[in-house]
Amino acid sequence: MSRPGTRLDSKKVNSELFTLTYGALVSQLMKDYENVDDVNKQLERMGYNIGIRLIEDFLAKTGSGRCYDFRDTAEKIQAGFRLYLGITPTLANWSASGDEFSLQFEANPLTEFVELPDHCLNLKYCNILTGVLRGALEMVQMDVSSTFVQDHLKGDSCTELRVKFIKRLEDAIPAGED
Amino acid sequence: MSRPGTRLDSKKVNSELFTLTYGALVSQLMKDYENVDDVNKQLERMGYNIGIRLIEDFLAKTGSGRCYDFRDTAEKIQAGFRLYLGITPTLANWSASGDEFSLQFEANPLTEFVELPDHCLNLKYCNILTGVLRGALEMVQMDVSSTFVQDHLKGDSCTELRVKFIKRLEDAIPAGED
Repeated sequence: MSRPGTRLDSKKVNSELFTLTYGALVSQLMKDYENVDDVNKQLERMGYNIGIRLIEDFLAKTGSGRCYDFRDTAEKIQAGFRLYLGITPTLANWSASGDEFSLQFEANPLTEFVELPDHCLNLKYCNILTGVLRGALEMVQMDVSSTFVQDHLKGDSCTELRVKFIKRLEDAIPAGED
Repeated sequence: MSRPGTRLDSKKVNSELFTLTYGALVSQLMKDYENVDDVNKQLERMGYNIGIRLIEDFLAKTGSGRCYDFRDTAEKIQAGFRLYLGITPTLANWSASGDEFSLQFEANPLTEFVELPDHCLNLKYCNILTGVLRGALEMVQMDVSSTFVQDHLKGDSCTELRVKFIKRLEDAIPAGED
């Protein structure tokens, strides 16, 4: 048995390979679906399936307990990005009621070397991440929506993912068990 | 400017996310293609496209020069697995003439948590790797073929990838430039 810390360090892969593999996935979907909106939806769905599995790994690795409030959730999401993608997005633009915030990305291993051709301008290249968040949070009884409101690949100065709390799912059956 | 060593260390992503993303890619192909052989071929093709790009990154990071012989190539391939997947496959079963060897894998981040359903028994789940090798080596003027001869996912005691030297491509135009 290795100690949790050791295991955490050793289980890394090089980000270039990940970037290129994710690129192959997006290219394949662009071939499969006639319109870009369907590609965005499919990426979100794939992300959801990843999120509902990844959350267990996240909870095991970080020993996180229940969130006190949505700010606490935001920080745990930030920690998730650090753990899985090696990046720390900035938490910004909180709504007055505290139910909505943005994750702002400067670097992002998913989009390194990527340039979108003209016919892909509606493509939300990183949309898998919105699904990962939805899936992972649903497993801890939280219903959120998220959407990219700025995208570096489309000439915006940064990439910004807006995350909105919708409701608690206290009485719902966790996803995957219904 | 960061030093190469620093950059190398910091550009890692967590292997669980990579595993699940690769799983999503394979699942998508299983939906897209009617038969498993086509999935194997498509994975190989995707790997080829990754390999022809990844080789530049490999050469830049390792400062590798020209290979002395195929044993030297084998060791560099082994180093590539260490660099990109964080695993060190064993080099084994060299042919008498030195033109063929095996990479034996005990751990493999691509296949972690994976179980093949019965209708996927012909699936070469990791076939993307054969394409990566072919693409990367073609870019350094070497024509190789590789194939999985044992697969842990199918009940074999280890996963074994057999790599065979075919010919030098001294006079050929490197792939991607024709």
